Amino acid sequence: MSIITLTTDYGLKDHFVGALKGKIASQLPNATVIDISHEVDPFNVAQASYLIESAYASFPKGTVHLIGVDAEMNSENQHIALQWNGHYFIAADNGILSILTQKIIPEKIYAINIHDRLHLEATDMDVLITVATHLSKGGLLNVIGKEIVALKEITQLQPSVENNTIIKGCVIYIDHFGNVVTNITKKMFLEMGQERPYEIFFNAKSNLKKKKNPIKTIYPKYSEIVNNDDYSSSTYDGIRVAIFNEANYLELGIYRSNPRSLGSASSLFGLTYRDTVEIIFK
Amino acid sequence: MSIITLTTDYGLKDHFVGALKGKIASQLPNATVIDISHEVDPFNVAQASYLIESAYASFPKGTVHLIGVDAEMNSENQHIALQWNGHYFIAADNGILSILTQKIIPEKIYAINIHDRLHLEATDMDVLITVATHLSKGGLLNVIGKEIVALKEITQLQPSVENNTIIKGCVIYIDHFGNVVTNITKKMFLEMGQERPYEIFFNAKSNLKKKKNPIKTIYPKYSEIVNNDDYSSSTYDGIRVAIFNEANYLELGIYRSNPRSLGSASSLFGLTYRDTVEIIFK
Amino acid sequence: MSIITLTTDYGLKDHFVGALKGKIASQLPNATVIDISHEVDPFNVAQASYLIESAYASFPKGTVHLIGVDAEMNSENQHIALQWNGHYFIAADNGILSILTQKIIPEKIYAINIHDRLHLEATDMDVLITVATHLSKGGLLNVIGKEIVALKEITQLQPSVENNTIIKGCVIYIDHFGNVVTNITKKMFLEMGQERPYEIFFNAKSNLKKKKNPIKTIYPKYSEIVNNDDYSSSTYDGIRVAIFNEANYLELGIYRSNPRSLGSASSLFGLTYRDTVEIIFK
Repeated sequence: MSIITLTTDYGLKDHFVGALKGKIASQLPNATVIDISHEVDPFNVAQASYLIESAYASFPKGTVHLIGVDAEMNSENQHIALQWNGHYFIAADNGILSILTQKIIPEKIYAINIHDRLHLEATDMDVLITVATHLSKGGLLNVIGKEIVALKEITQLQPSVENNTIIKGCVIYIDHFGNVVTNITKKMFLEMGQERPYEIFFNAKSNLKKKKNPIKTIYPKYSEIVNNDDYSSSTYDGIRVAIFNEANYLELGIYRSNPRSLGSASSLFGLTYRDTVEIIFK
Repeated sequence: MSIITLTTDYGLKDHFVGALKGKIASQLPNATVIDISHEVDPFNVAQASYLIESAYASFPKGTVHLIGVDAEMNSENQHIALQWNGHYFIAADNGILSILTQKIIPEKIYAINIHDRLHLEATDMDVLITVATHLSKGGLLNVIGKEIVALKEITQLQPSVENNTIIKGCVIYIDHFGNVVTNITKKMFLEMGQERPYEIFFNAKSNLKKKKNPIKTIYPKYSEIVNNDDYSSSTYDGIRVAIFNEANYLELGIYRSNPRSLGSASSLFGLTYRDTVEIIFK
Repeated sequence: MSIITLTTDYGLKDHFVGALKGKIASQLPNATVIDISHEVDPFNVAQASYLIESAYASFPKGTVHLIGVDAEMNSENQHIALQWNGHYFIAADNGILSILTQKIIPEKIYAINIHDRLHLEATDMDVLITVATHLSKGGLLNVIGKEIVALKEITQLQPSVENNTIIKGCVIYIDHFGNVVTNITKKMFLEMGQERPYEIFFNAKSNLKKKKNPIKTIYPKYSEIVNNDDYSSSTYDGIRVAIFNEANYLELGIYRSNPRSLGSASSLFGLTYRDTVEIIFK
């Protein structure tokens, strides 16, 4: 019996997450359920997709990832189960999995069709839960749906490229520490950069427009800033850093900043969700 | 061994919930513990009661619901274990279970009397935990307490009815999405309404007083708004809706609103905890 | 297989805690993982230390406490595993365990040295997770590190004592209810006080400086305020109280206050992290 992960926009204040786990336990008494996040901004499919993409690889093969963000089935969004590299992803076809499949090629995609087999009062989440427990028990995809070849196409914000010298991306996530995650990937940076020098501009205090005050180094991880040097680590507290994070996205941060006192990258850089970040190669 | 659920006002910042789970695990190593909520407003028994009422039916029979809100035993509040329909509820007799028993008729109520059997330093929660693990293991109620016939009477805010035309209720809960839950039940609405047309008034911008700007339809669920129609779902983003929620209470919301950007029902309707909501039948 | 507890500053919004649990489950499929807190202020080792000290005794012997606060290994902070009274504590040597060992004498301290045995991309947390699952399975400390005799010395804020009449402490934690926890312990109070009368001063509205408006009684617990008396408990709502909390630290609170409406001890007393609290004996 494999792990079921949960990613929702339900928040933790209400009874919704508890009730969801109660329903899973009712169907599968010894289920192992692990929360990825319940603090996705309501209906924000891009955020949900970023979180699930960043998290899934930490789980063992066979894990079933249940995503309850904008999960209502309607004439536009059917319910989907997708298999990839031993993981299962269950969600509405609302863009969450489409963004993911721009990076991975799913082995199998099924449109879930068990809705009329459940009791009359069954909610959308009841359907997804039933599929999740079925797969967690080792059940087959073709029992719960009909194989399809593609997800609904989503015009998703992807970084644009100009003259082989500029990557123009945007902020897709701001984490708990106030670090700013962009949609610029390490792969894109390496392929286009070809080891040329570069500068990163972003829109705090019109630095983006005036091309002022860039960051010029992307570190492999936060701790490298210190290890490369013989200063005390506290010397670096509060400096601006760029790294490729564990999910291989360009992330802008403040070294060892406490967002509640010093301020976070997001507040200090003046960046918010969807703002532009540019890398210019020389 | 059955599930133990937790509903408290402890919050998730401190070590309290972790310590509670550590104590349960010390008594019952393989306990399955599921959080319902730890974000109940401090000492708010009405909220705790609403959450537990909304959640319990999602859990399998045999589940033990431990409620740590205003749980100190004192001369006014004794500790109670209540059995109903295969579920157990453990709390102080402070109103949480009294509100619940206005809707359900408990099969058995026990006043817990094991306090002097525990070690001297035992806290109120140690007592409730000991009862919870005892019941989770299949232990009998009469081992941990003395059967009583009734809970302490609570004068609880119930909707009032005027001339068979008005139901006057109030806000009992505001959820993570900013939806406003009232104490008006579907049962009450159906029995009194007898399929007459109706209008729902509430006190944003003096609409209640001036009887302006009512909501005139209660949908069975949020997604029905879209399914009844051939417009795109996004047409409806931001419109006001009334539904009977899964716990069968009248809920006022904003369709697909993000409380952090567009504003929530609570903020847009100008409603807060205990504010009046009226249904007037014609 | 013993419990693994988690204490981090990761927050619950991001995927980090879920990914951490996924990695633990990958190494130890049936691990029992219990969260102590993920809301430690970023990099605040004093808070992390207070939480772990307050929580660990609620867990059974054999429990492995994994602390992911300021956990990066660098030239100043090595990774440590410490054994005490049947519990294991795993963290970077950044002060969290040093504060703890001012109260307990560890049986064994190991500097973790498995870093070069892990894959190249392994993060600091991967190292700590590997040690945690090893110990949870009953593995030996000497397999994962080299025994050392002492932790790095930390000059930690300890209360100072003047003329055998004043204990001058400070605020180390503010909890979810807004109660203010100081670093003054019950032991210190009893040893120095020798049952003399006392007054507690703190810095709201210059009461500390002007020595005005002290609290004169420390209760053994919040409920004692009511039990000692024949008034209704609601008489006491909102009064100022001092107690020794379950971790035996002096805590200042407001009886049954809701920080969201009435205000918390922290806001009403005008106290924040690191502010001074004095006990003066007569």
